[in-house]
Order: sequence, then C-alpha cells, then structure tokens
Amino acid sequence: MEITAGQYELVYNFFSFTIATMGAATIFFWLSRSQVASSYRTALTITGLVTFIALYHYVRILDSWDSAYTLVDGVLTQTGVAFNDAYRYVDWLLTVPLLLVELILVMKLTRSETSSKSLRLGLLAALMIVLGYPGEIAADTGTRWMFWGAAMLPFLWIAYELFVGLSDSIAAQPAEVRGLVNGARWLTLISWSFYPVVFIFPMIGLTGGTTAVAVQIGYTIADIVSKAVFGLVIYTIAVRKSEADANASPA
Amino acid sequence: MEITAGQYELVYNFFSFTIATMGAATIFFWLSRSQVASSYRTALTITGLVTFIALYHYVRILDSWDSAYTLVDGVLTQTGVAFNDAYRYVDWLLTVPLLLVELILVMKLTRSETSSKSLRLGLLAALMIVLGYPGEIAADTGTRWMFWGAAMLPFLWIAYELFVGLSDSIAAQPAEVRGLVNGARWLTLISWSFYPVVFIFPMIGLTGGTTAVAVQIGYTIADIVSKAVFGLVIYTIAVRKSEADANASPA
Repeated sequence: MEITAGQYELVYNFFSFTIATMGAATIFFWLSRSQVASSYRTALTITGLVTFIALYHYVRILDSWDSAYTLVDGVLTQTGVAFNDAYRYVDWLLTVPLLLVELILVMKLTRSETSSKSLRLGLLAALMIVLGYPGEIAADTGTRWMFWGAAMLPFLWIAYELFVGLSDSIAAQPAEVRGLVNGARWLTLISWSFYPVVFIFPMIGLTGGTTAVAVQIGYTIADIVSKAVFGLVIYTIAVRKSEADANASPA
Repeated sequence: MEITAGQYELVYNFFSFTIATMGAATIFFWLSRSQVASSYRTALTITGLVTFIALYHYVRILDSWDSAYTLVDGVLTQTGVAFNDAYRYVDWLLTVPLLLVELILVMKLTRSETSSKSLRLGLLAALMIVLGYPGEIAADTGTRWMFWGAAMLPFLWIAYELFVGLSDSIAAQPAEVRGLVNGARWLTLISWSFYPVVFIFPMIGLTGGTTAVAVQIGYTIADIVSKAVFGLVIYTIAVRKSEADANASPA
C-alpha cells in the first residue's frame, strides 16, 4: 500500500488523538459513577469499559502502524511488517455488544427485560462482527459481498429491535430523558451505518493509498462517535434520571 | 534545526519536569473530588482530565524529542526522525475546550446556561486550534499570518464571552469566591495570550536553534500555567464554594 509521508503522519496523529480521547473518556465515565444513583452505575461502568477496550486497541493499532512504516529524513518506507487490521474486529467483538448493553442498562427496564434484551442484542451484535471479518480479510470482491450481506442481516435485526422492540420501553421513560434515549438509538444507527459503507470502498473500485488512509480515519471517527460521544449521551441520561428519581421519591 | 547538546538537554529536562507536574496535578485534582460538595466534583474531574491529557502528550513529546536527536560522547546528532509538533495541537484540541468547561462548571450556573455556554465556548476554542494548525505547519510567512489572524477571531470572541458574557454570572457568585473567579478568567486570558505571541517568533525573523528551544520552553511554561496552575484556582473555588454552600443551608 503506497502512502505519502504526510498521510502516514496524519493517520499516526489521528490514532494518537484517539488514544487520548478514549483514555480521557474512560476516566470520566468511571469517576462519574459517584455522581449518579446506584441503579445507573453499572451503565457507566460498562460505558467506561467500552472506551477502555478501545483505548487498549488503539495503543496496539498505533504501534502496528508505527512498525509497518519508517520515516527517515522525510522519506517513508514500508518495513515489510504488515499493519494488523484484526485489532479493529477484536475490539468490535467486545465493544459492540457492550454498547447495546449500556443503552439497555440506562433505560432501567425490569430485570427479565434487561436480561432478555441484553442477551438478544448482544448476541446479534457479536454475530454481525464475526460474519464481517471473513469478508474484511478476503481478497476477492465476491467473497467480500457475501459476508457483507451476511453481516447486514443481524445489523438490520438490531435496527428493528432498537426502533420497534424498544418503542414501548422508550415511551415509558421519564419525560426529561425520552428525547435523549431516542437520540441515543439514532446515534447508534447513524454511527454504525458508517462501518458497512467504509467496508464496500474496495469493492466499488476505491483502492490505493488515499482510500486506505480514508478508511483508517473513517473507522477512527466512527469509533469516537459510537463509543465516546454515545457514552456522553448515556452519562447525561444517567444524571437526569438520577435527578428525576430523587424528585419522584422525596426522602 | 541546529541546537547544542546543552539546549537539547535543557528541553529534555523541561519536558520531564512537565510530565511530573502534570501527573502530580492530575492525581491531586482527582483525589480532591471527595473534599468538595457533589456539585463541584465534575469540575474537578474535568480539571484532572485536562492535566491527564497533557501528561499523555508530554510523554509522547519527550519520546519524540528523544528520537529526533542522539547525544553520544557529548556530541549531538540529528537522527533524521522528525520531532512531531502535532502532539501539541492534538492536545490543545482536547484540553482548551475542557479548560473553559471547568470554569463554567465550577460557577454552577443553571443547567441551560451551563449547556449553552459550554457548547459555545468549547466550539470556539476547538475552532481556534483547528485554524491555528495549518499556519503552524506552513513554511511561508504569508500563510502563517493568514491562519494566525483567522485563529485570533475565535480567541477574541472567547475573551469577549469571558469578560462581557460572563459578567452577570460572576457578579452572582458568592462573595468569598468572586475575586477568585475573576482571577481565573484573567489567568485564562493572560496565559492563553502567550501562544499567539510564540507563534509569530518565526514570522518576525526569530529562527534557528535558540528560537526553537525558546518556543518549546515557552509553550511548556504556558501549558503548566494554563492547565495546572489554572486547575489549582478551580480547585480553590470549588473548596470555598462547598464551604459557603454548607453554611448557607444548615443541615
């Protein structure tokens, strides 16, 4: 993959920015546990776990990027060590199910609904990632399309669950947060839609160094939005619901 | 960039000093969360996040400085690996908006004022950094001046918001902290003014190794003042307001 020195540095700095962002987000979510009612603390614990797992993987991704190229006197050379793309899939396998669990937990459904919805959405999310990976590493376009299509089935099922399956539960949320919870599912749908779009770049003839750089930066921005920004929405919901709960039951 | 062995060591030791300072400040702010009332804890969480993000970047900056030069038997040689100046901008992109959010949070305004002022000041601060970077990496003086001027517009708007937009809110602060909150905005204005001044050094003919060293040390001192010292002011305001709140509403 031929990229310029400037492109190498751009991606490098983007990865470093993401490490700082995920690290800061993790600590923010965990320290903020004390600022919400006990019922919402597990949601913030998980929210911080997601950005923490991403932090770990971006440290590895940056290291792998750094090992794949050397830049001496402004000249960029490939070292022959391959950039490891699998870190992203390993990350998503863990974080994507947890993102859905965050949303379920902050909604504070009944215990049986929490278990059944977390389990169903979590398994669908894991299945989506597992089906996408063989396509990602496949060289021929036909195989890529086949696995892309297969992974889209659980993705559409998740969208259906979020927009139909959760409708009654969202309608039952306190008025202060109904808009935010609705916003959280839209943020999920929109930020997640980015990944299958980036995935098809090489299948529609977008190849070469510039596309490769666009893919790395695209996935990185999508990760920041779907994990850190989404986490801030979850945090805000948890804070508002804690206040609403306190007002509803005067001590 | 030709620098002497002594200058290399001076900058190296300055960076190491900053790592220790930012690390210590971070832990102080986070441990002090338990010493203030619940309403001020998020302000201290963010205050510590700012120094934590700076800690991360100074570790990388020191490492990059170390990779750019080797000092063997007292002879300094450039390795050909470029010193990465982008870390500073990546740091500021995250920390400068958060510094304004700290100040807003410790003032404890109404929820809608907190959101609107944090959002406006945060976006202006991010815009200022984004506009400054193309100037920083530009080689010719004309381009540097153009982006310098562009970045000064959001800077002046921020100054206006701090000194005019926040006037009523500062007048409404408890008497014990009014002077400190006023001091915090002056500290922001003065320490932030340092950056655009350092930025123009190369444009007014200050070049060469000694200027490059002065720029590194100048930015570093400005970072310590605007993040760690400013954070101590925020901490003091949080402690005083916690005491004032406790006296105002006897349990």
